[in-house]
Amino acid sequence: MRAVQLGAYDKSPELTEVPDPTVTGPLDVIVRIGGAGVCRTDLHIIEGQWAEKSGVTLPYTLGHENAGWVQETGSAVTHVSPGDKVILHPMATCGLCMACRAGDDVHCTDSVFPGINADGGFADLLKTNARAVVKLDDSLEPADVAALADAGLTAYHAVRKASRRLRPGHRVVVIGAGGLGHIGVQALAALTAAEIIVVDRSEGALALAAEIGADHTVPADGTQVAAVQELTGGEGAEVVIDFVGEGGAIEDGVAMLRRAGDYHVIGYGGELRVPTIDVISTEINFIGNLVGSYTDLVELMALAARGEVTLHTTAYPLTDHARALTDLDRGEVRGRAILIP
Amino acid sequence: MRAVQLGAYDKSPELTEVPDPTVTGPLDVIVRIGGAGVCRTDLHIIEGQWAEKSGVTLPYTLGHENAGWVQETGSAVTHVSPGDKVILHPMATCGLCMACRAGDDVHCTDSVFPGINADGGFADLLKTNARAVVKLDDSLEPADVAALADAGLTAYHAVRKASRRLRPGHRVVVIGAGGLGHIGVQALAALTAAEIIVVDRSEGALALAAEIGADHTVPADGTQVAAVQELTGGEGAEVVIDFVGEGGAIEDGVAMLRRAGDYHVIGYGGELRVPTIDVISTEINFIGNLVGSYTDLVELMALAARGEVTLHTTAYPLTDHARALTDLDRGEVRGRAILIP
Amino acid sequence: MRAVQLGAYDKSPELTEVPDPTVTGPLDVIVRIGGAGVCRTDLHIIEGQWAEKSGVTLPYTLGHENAGWVQETGSAVTHVSPGDKVILHPMATCGLCMACRAGDDVHCTDSVFPGINADGGFADLLKTNARAVVKLDDSLEPADVAALADAGLTAYHAVRKASRRLRPGHRVVVIGAGGLGHIGVQALAALTAAEIIVVDRSEGALALAAEIGADHTVPADGTQVAAVQELTGGEGAEVVIDFVGEGGAIEDGVAMLRRAGDYHVIGYGGELRVPTIDVISTEINFIGNLVGSYTDLVELMALAARGEVTLHTTAYPLTDHARALTDLDRGEVRGRAILIP
Amino acid sequence: MRAVQLGAYDKSPELTEVPDPTVTGPLDVIVRIGGAGVCRTDLHIIEGQWAEKSGVTLPYTLGHENAGWVQETGSAVTHVSPGDKVILHPMATCGLCMACRAGDDVHCTDSVFPGINADGGFADLLKTNARAVVKLDDSLEPADVAALADAGLTAYHAVRKASRRLRPGHRVVVIGAGGLGHIGVQALAALTAAEIIVVDRSEGALALAAEIGADHTVPADGTQVAAVQELTGGEGAEVVIDFVGEGGAIEDGVAMLRRAGDYHVIGYGGELRVPTIDVISTEINFIGNLVGSYTDLVELMALAARGEVTLHTTAYPLTDHARALTDLDRGEVRGRAILIP
Repeated sequence: MRAVQLGAYDKSPELTEVPDPTVTGPLDVIVRIGGAGVCRTDLHIIEGQWAEKSGVTLPYTLGHENAGWVQETGSAVTHVSPGDKVILHPMATCGLCMACRAGDDVHCTDSVFPGINADGGFADLLKTNARAVVKLDDSLEPADVAALADAGLTAYHAVRKASRRLRPGHRVVVIGAGGLGHIGVQALAALTAAEIIVVDRSEGALALAAEIGADHTVPADGTQVAAVQELTGGEGAEVVIDFVGEGGAIEDGVAMLRRAGDYHVIGYGGELRVPTIDVISTEINFIGNLVGSYTDLVELMALAARGEVTLHTTAYPLTDHARALTDLDRGEVRGRAILIP
Repeated sequence: MRAVQLGAYDKSPELTEVPDPTVTGPLDVIVRIGGAGVCRTDLHIIEGQWAEKSGVTLPYTLGHENAGWVQETGSAVTHVSPGDKVILHPMATCGLCMACRAGDDVHCTDSVFPGINADGGFADLLKTNARAVVKLDDSLEPADVAALADAGLTAYHAVRKASRRLRPGHRVVVIGAGGLGHIGVQALAALTAAEIIVVDRSEGALALAAEIGADHTVPADGTQVAAVQELTGGEGAEVVIDFVGEGGAIEDGVAMLRRAGDYHVIGYGGELRVPTIDVISTEINFIGNLVGSYTDLVELMALAARGEVTLHTTAYPLTDHARALTDLDRGEVRGRAILIP
Repeated sequence: MRAVQLGAYDKSPELTEVPDPTVTGPLDVIVRIGGAGVCRTDLHIIEGQWAEKSGVTLPYTLGHENAGWVQETGSAVTHVSPGDKVILHPMATCGLCMACRAGDDVHCTDSVFPGINADGGFADLLKTNARAVVKLDDSLEPADVAALADAGLTAYHAVRKASRRLRPGHRVVVIGAGGLGHIGVQALAALTAAEIIVVDRSEGALALAAEIGADHTVPADGTQVAAVQELTGGEGAEVVIDFVGEGGAIEDGVAMLRRAGDYHVIGYGGELRVPTIDVISTEINFIGNLVGSYTDLVELMALAARGEVTLHTTAYPLTDHARALTDLDRGEVRGRAILIP
Repeated sequence: MRAVQLGAYDKSPELTEVPDPTVTGPLDVIVRIGGAGVCRTDLHIIEGQWAEKSGVTLPYTLGHENAGWVQETGSAVTHVSPGDKVILHPMATCGLCMACRAGDDVHCTDSVFPGINADGGFADLLKTNARAVVKLDDSLEPADVAALADAGLTAYHAVRKASRRLRPGHRVVVIGAGGLGHIGVQALAALTAAEIIVVDRSEGALALAAEIGADHTVPADGTQVAAVQELTGGEGAEVVIDFVGEGGAIEDGVAMLRRAGDYHVIGYGGELRVPTIDVISTEINFIGNLVGSYTDLVELMALAARGEVTLHTTAYPLTDHARALTDLDRGEVRGRAILIP
């Protein structure tokens, strides 16, 4: 089959012919790829930023946001059959560790992450396991939802946690309405009746946010803290969801937070730095968020099937992988780039 | 001032002139009534069904769903001022018992219920206490929201509790889409992304339900259990919210419930009767629901201000109180009847 | 190997020689039995009460409360090794259905229940799957904890759910301090600081309850409702945990419940029968309880390892299986009967 | 009456004669002081550190941890009567703001804090309001529990929040087993069955911790992170409760935390400083903790009445106030110093 493989760090991946993956274990699932999201993380992998962390051996196939059709299954797989339309949870988890048993499989102690530390989905076929496949509703197509498998799932996971305390009349600030943030806004609108305030530097991002559920949009032009304070009657917001996590976003976000408020950290790069006296005197919380669980992905697909979460995508044939990566690097992709085999 | 008073059971209430209520305690609040909902409970009170339970001394003024403007306040009232638009929580609670301290003021051990055991709102003025008044958003008018004060609050309270476990992809059955139920459907649509299935005998009620948020409507014509089982792939629904609570509604509702499902009881009249083996082998729960708390009413008003919960009402001048009660008794009121002083 | 098999309903099981179970699937685990609890359910199975429900084909081996040592594992089993001391969750679950994925594996849609619908643990060896085995702490012995695998797990599961709302100063009534109830009392004492009131007909059971954590014991001699009302200042208890579920227990239990209280149903046989007006006017809840999940069993073993839950047991050699069943039937077993191969 | 008043910052408070407080509002409560805790905060107040924050006008009476007997009540006070033994929640809250209505009265927007910004309890009498008084069980004496009113309440509040996720088999690290920490350890032992690991620099504090509930004690001698990692099998603890919040405590605490763990901040002085990549890649949370609510204090008194939380105290007559403050400053008080009028 064809696969876009990274042969060496800091060199362009190349489309090559590789052997088809085969079922070797009872829970293996081979998926024919219908679409694979191209993500900024792929650029970082190519640059070698993940080399040490992933420990992957080159060459290997990129692509960690995948959807398609089941091609073949191991002997113990009972819940999907060849031909089923599926989206893939990014992690193939063990199912036996305590995290898996508690439904918190993101913290599985023995998982594989195709596209990161194993062959991914910029290819005709991908091998994962039974615990990673979520069947799609008839109304959904793999290429349309593939990019929800990782970026979207992370945004949904944070919103799901945040929504537990968001009641009607509460205010939630979303910092950053880009790839993750605009999924977050749609999920907030679907899961809560809170007032949604979106902060971003880009006018375009704010315009989109207003269309998909934001009640208020605030340009991040230096006046954003004052603007949020005014929108919240000087109280601050019950919840801040920070998809940026660097630059001044954290300081701003903390200044927008109400007493006893929750600050959700999703974006990263910067440093969380707060005097403990400020943490205790206002009794605020900082909540970390990683990618979502399998059940989160099932829920996100239910939202997608209801039309409550949609993605803008630009399709590229697999043979145009280089152009997709270049366009992404230059910020020229409208929505998410999807490679179609 | 004028007041519609019940002078004797089984006789029609009469509009009479009575002294204005006066502030006698530091937390008293006198409200000029803008609208008072006329409710089936008023008919039951007139018939004497509540005589023993309420222990009220006749004559007294009816009306337990009230909204208006603050007229005068006691010396310790700090959060509202004369002229403020307000809706009244049905209970004037003590604020000192453990239930009140925990925010669960519905179970206050020392409360007054105007319109039930004290003078109510079918009048120009009503006396309650500071803990019962919720300020209204500028966009809301007392006469439009008055009927949310009790019926709507009960429906919202149940939905709020039910929504904690309703995830995208889950199914919730609403049995009965009448006065309470149609508020419940709107609240479910606002608070959850679950699939909403509404069961009712009336075609009109089902048509309205479909407009305001039901994903599926099912006529209660004897095939309703089978219909819900089909809509849920034979699994049953994660949650059933029963606004009827009598007739075959309970048996039907239990038969529509999924393993580990929650059955919310709001309507009453019948008997909950289930073999304990069925309760444990499917691990189902029966959840009682009374009226909502003060914070529930604040949240419901936030939903109303966002336009996510609306009521159909028919206004009657206070002088037409007899006609309003008669129309209600005959089932000839479109939406809720509201008396306007 | 030797196995106590039921050859026909209403006949005594017999110790016979049968082939050893073998690993046929990648997640299979063969366990050398160290102890198997003898339970009233075994008597019911012999009488044929479970014939239709389980659908098991005779002859088969009884025994559904099992612990021992791992003998052999399938190729995909990574978390236990031959020689490990283990207790067995009663159900061997699929790990792929939504209930399993959410950590709620008791509601697995594709499970096997050794001792009920497959060969059980009254034998030298038993076959289960990887998802059923919990490693034991060094301080625990299989024969000592085997009876916690089902009866104890059910009691723990209910207490775990009940404990979420039991705060210091709250009161919890335990109805029935027998096999399950006396585990429940110990678990309540370990997990909560609530006041524990135990109701039972047996003086001996009450005396044991007082030793292991009950703050108050109440004989079920007809005065129990009045006694509980007095102990709770006329308010009733925040939680009732009913291990009896038949006779007058339910009516009594409801009468002991406080406003907004939780009634946990574990025992069965009788009927839950309450007017809906009583459910809503006091806003009480009825909570069904089945056996616990895998993570519940892990927690229960942690309690056992801390010495916070202990069982009285009487050991019988496997060859004395008939005497164990007879003693149980006659009520002559002190604590739980355990068959030791 | 007599009162220990601060006349000027950086000068010793003096015992002077002042007028008795009088009931002026309907919810006022005058309490005859039975004991008032002397706290490190009192030293800071004298030094002027709180001058700006509290805005109090000198002279005023110190003492913010108070218990005694009700002396006189306003006309609207119904739940206590003269002669009742009571402990005082440190804040006299409004009861009308949304925080108060939700039971979260610590975030009341209109409260008074006797001893901080109003006359406190180093006196014969103190004036507070009805919402601050908690009746004591017959078995408790005001002087014995007074110091639980603020320091103990803060520790209990954090433990109550932390205990929600602590299951049997989980590990909780307590950093700092001093005044607050040793209450925290007792509360953890009462509310959870988790394994309690206590870290402190002082051998004496560790010895006490072992007596009152710690399963493991770890000297903070530079090896504490390694020691906790070893005690937790290299996983880290599910929860860290940090009563120190400065020095290296925070870095240590984060290094002791398990994936998806909760870090509770109570102590303050230092800075929380963590790269956002570490927050998200391990999905950890930082939870702020202020003093407890009224219901928390009720629960803490229930624990005290059960003997599950006890304080070591040293009594000083009110006339020896200077010696109490000096002893505290020199670290020569055994347990907590209590002024007795």
